[in-house]
Amino acid sequence: MEQGCIRLDPPPNLTVVADGGVASAHGFAACGVHAGIRRNRDELDLALVVADEPCAAAGMFTQNVFCSAPVTVSREHLDGVSYGTARAVLVNSGNANAATGDIGLANARETARMAADAIGCTEDEVLVASTGVIGVHLPLAPFEDHLGEAAHALSGAGGHDAACAIMTTDTFPKEYAVTYESGALGFEGMRVTIGGMVKGSGMIMPNMATMIAVVTTDAPIAPEAAHRALRQAVAVSFNKVTVDSDTSTNDSCFLLASGKAPGAPGSLIVDRDPAYFEFADALGHVCTTLARDMACDGEGATRLITVEVRGAASDEDADLAARAVANSPLVKTAVFGHDANWGRIAMAIGKSGAAFRQEDVSIDIMGIAVCRGGLTVEFDEDEALKRFENPEIVLSVDLGAGEGSATMWTCDLTHDYVTINGDYRT
Amino acid sequence: MEQGCIRLDPPPNLTVVADGGVASAHGFAACGVHAGIRRNRDELDLALVVADEPCAAAGMFTQNVFCSAPVTVSREHLDGVSYGTARAVLVNSGNANAATGDIGLANARETARMAADAIGCTEDEVLVASTGVIGVHLPLAPFEDHLGEAAHALSGAGGHDAACAIMTTDTFPKEYAVTYESGALGFEGMRVTIGGMVKGSGMIMPNMATMIAVVTTDAPIAPEAAHRALRQAVAVSFNKVTVDSDTSTNDSCFLLASGKAPGAPGSLIVDRDPAYFEFADALGHVCTTLARDMACDGEGATRLITVEVRGAASDEDADLAARAVANSPLVKTAVFGHDANWGRIAMAIGKSGAAFRQEDVSIDIMGIAVCRGGLTVEFDEDEALKRFENPEIVLSVDLGAGEGSATMWTCDLTHDYVTINGDYRT
Repeated sequence: MEQGCIRLDPPPNLTVVADGGVASAHGFAACGVHAGIRRNRDELDLALVVADEPCAAAGMFTQNVFCSAPVTVSREHLDGVSYGTARAVLVNSGNANAATGDIGLANARETARMAADAIGCTEDEVLVASTGVIGVHLPLAPFEDHLGEAAHALSGAGGHDAACAIMTTDTFPKEYAVTYESGALGFEGMRVTIGGMVKGSGMIMPNMATMIAVVTTDAPIAPEAAHRALRQAVAVSFNKVTVDSDTSTNDSCFLLASGKAPGAPGSLIVDRDPAYFEFADALGHVCTTLARDMACDGEGATRLITVEVRGAASDEDADLAARAVANSPLVKTAVFGHDANWGRIAMAIGKSGAAFRQEDVSIDIMGIAVCRGGLTVEFDEDEALKRFENPEIVLSVDLGAGEGSATMWTCDLTHDYVTINGDYRT
Repeated sequence: MEQGCIRLDPPPNLTVVADGGVASAHGFAACGVHAGIRRNRDELDLALVVADEPCAAAGMFTQNVFCSAPVTVSREHLDGVSYGTARAVLVNSGNANAATGDIGLANARETARMAADAIGCTEDEVLVASTGVIGVHLPLAPFEDHLGEAAHALSGAGGHDAACAIMTTDTFPKEYAVTYESGALGFEGMRVTIGGMVKGSGMIMPNMATMIAVVTTDAPIAPEAAHRALRQAVAVSFNKVTVDSDTSTNDSCFLLASGKAPGAPGSLIVDRDPAYFEFADALGHVCTTLARDMACDGEGATRLITVEVRGAASDEDADLAARAVANSPLVKTAVFGHDANWGRIAMAIGKSGAAFRQEDVSIDIMGIAVCRGGLTVEFDEDEALKRFENPEIVLSVDLGAGEGSATMWTCDLTHDYVTINGDYRT
C-alpha cells in the first residue's frame, strides 16, 4: 500500500517504542545481511535474532500438509510441543526450502548448525524459518559465507535490518514495539517491552499462511504460558488476516522471552496470573498491529479492509461470515472500484454457512447504512465515494442472530495483485 | 475467452445438433427480446422458453441464505419439492431481484402472472429466474410492455436469442444440444434430443452460483426421475465449476421434458430403467459441456483450466483438493503468467483438508511431469511455455492415497477480471 501501515492508537497502558522492533526488548540483538540467497538482487536476505542467553521460546506453525523443512526442524527444536528454550531465530528470504524432501531437512538442520557455531550455542537452540520459491533446494554457501558476518553485525539497533531481510514481495518492513509498566501483584513497577517483526503479503490466510513473525519480550514468562499467550494472540491477529485465501507451506510465528525486563522480581509469570493477562493483552495488541500491517501490504493493495461481523449466533459463525466477506474477490474488487456494492457482501455472508435470516441483516460501509432488514437503504453516493478515499475501509455486518462477533483484515484486489503473481517466478 | 468455448467430442452414441440449443427438442419454442431492463443498453434482456403443453419439470437452486425472490417463487411453483409440471421458464438479465424483500416476491409473482397471460397458462406453470444487480427493485413495465411481443416471437429457432438474452458479463452465448437413438428395452429407436443454454461468468462456484441454466428434452421422463437425473448431472458439471469462489443469490437450473421424442412408446422413463441411465449420461454430457463453456467465459479469462485429482482417499477428498486448486488465486495468476509453478498447486492441495502424505504426490501440468514423490522433476521449460499457448490448461494431481477422483473447471485470474469487477455497478 502506498501509504504504508495504518496504525491505531494503543490502549492507554501501552507506550509505543519509537522505531521499535524485534530487538527492542532487553536481552536481544538482531541483524539483517545480504547473503546472496536472492541471487539477482542486492537486498538483505538473511536475518538473525539472538538472545544473550537461552530463553523461553514458543512457536506456531502452518497447518499445510506440504509444510516446509524449516517448519519440521523448528518443531523438533521446540521439543515437538511448540515451546521450550532457544537462543536464536534464523530467517532467510529467497527460498522456502519447501517440497525439498530429505535433502531439504538436512539443509535446514545444517543452517541451524552453522548459525549455532557462529553465535556460540547448540544447534537445537536455533529456530529456523524460510520464505520464497517452493521446490528448489536451499543453497548452503550463502549461509556458510555470511553467518559469521551476521553474528558480528548483531546489535540492539539491528531490528530494522532484520525486518527488511525477511521481506519477499512486501513493499515495506513491518515492525512494532510497545512497553508497559506492570501493575500486577508481585510484578509492580516492572517495565516490560514487547516488539516484533513480520513478513507476508500474498498467500496469506489463517491458519498461519505465508507469514513469518518473530516477537521478543523481556517479560519473565514461563515457556508454556508464553505458548498459551502466543496462541491466543495469533487467533485474533495473524489468523484473522487473509489476502488471497491461500495458505502457505512455511508459516511460522515465534515468541522469545528473555526475562530481563527492568524491575523483574525473579519469579516467572505463569498462566492465569494477573501479570499473565496484562502480558497477553499487550502481546495481542502487538500481534494485531503487525497483522494489520500485513493486510495493508497485501500484494497490490491500495486499501486496508477491516470486516467486522457482530450479532452472529456464535463467534464461530461470526468468523465464518467475516472470512467469507474478506475472501470474496467480488467484495475486494468492489472496494478497489470504490463501489459501495453491499449486494456482494450479502452474497458472501449468505454463502458462508453462518446461521441467520436475510430480513435481520444490517450492513454499513464506512459507517454509512446501506442495508437494513436485508433491504437497500438510500444513501449519499457522493459521501460514500469520498469515504472510499480513506486508506482503511471498514465493512460492518450485523447478522441479528445473537451475540457472536469477529474482526478480519484483508485488502482490495487490484491489477497489481495480478501483475505480481502472474510474473513471480520468472 | 477470446476463442469462445472449447468443445470435447461427445461420446459415440451422441450426435451434436448443429446450432442446437434450448429449443432444439421437440415440443419447445424460445425467444429473446429487448425489454429495457438493462436500461443503458440495446441488448436482449428477456428470454422465454415455452413448452407446447404442460410438461415434466425439475429445478435446482442456490444454497445462499440471501436467495433471490425468483428462486423462492420458482421453488413454490415446483410444489416445494423441486419437481412437478410447468409450461415455461421466464428469465431476465439486468436485475437480480435479490435482497428486495416482500416487494421483490410480489414482483416475481407478477412477472410469472404476466408471462402466463401472454402464453395462455396458469401463473404457477411459469418458472422464473433473474440475474443482474442485487438490492434494486425489479421494474415491471418492461415485462408489461414486452411479454406480448415475446410470446409472439416464440419459435423453434429462438434458442439463440434466448441464450443471448440471459447474458450479463458473459462474452458469448452458451448453448448446446445433442440427440441419440435409444437402445434401451422398451424405448428402442426413440430419437431423443437434449439441449440447453446457460449464463454465468463471474460469481460462479458450486452449490449453484450465479448461473442460470435451462435444459429441455423431448425424452418421456417422469418429474421425479427428471429431478434425480438433473441433480446427478449438476453434481459433476455446474457444481464443479468455479470462477472466483463466490456463490450467487440467484442460481437456478431447470430441466423441462416434453415427452415428444419421435418414436416415444407412450410409457415414461422411470428411475433405474436402462433408458434412465442412457438419458442421465446424455444429460450429464450436455451439462458438462455447458459447464466448461461457463469456465471458458469466466470473467476476464484467457484460459480454461481443468483440474483433475485422482488417487485421493475418497471422492470427497478429491473434490476438496481439486476445489482448493481451482479456487487458488495464486494458481490462477500463475496460469495467466504461463508459469509452471507446481509449488502453488502443492500449497493448495496441502491446505485443502484432503488426507495424503507429501512424499506420495505427483503433479503434471499439461501432461508434463513437474513433481514426483513430492519433489521437483526437471522439465523442459520451453516445452511448458509452448503448451501454455493451448486454450485449455490441464493440471493433474495424484495424491497417492486411494481411488477417489474429481474434475473441476475454472479459468485464469487476469487484469480483465479486476477491471470488470472493479467497475461493474458504476
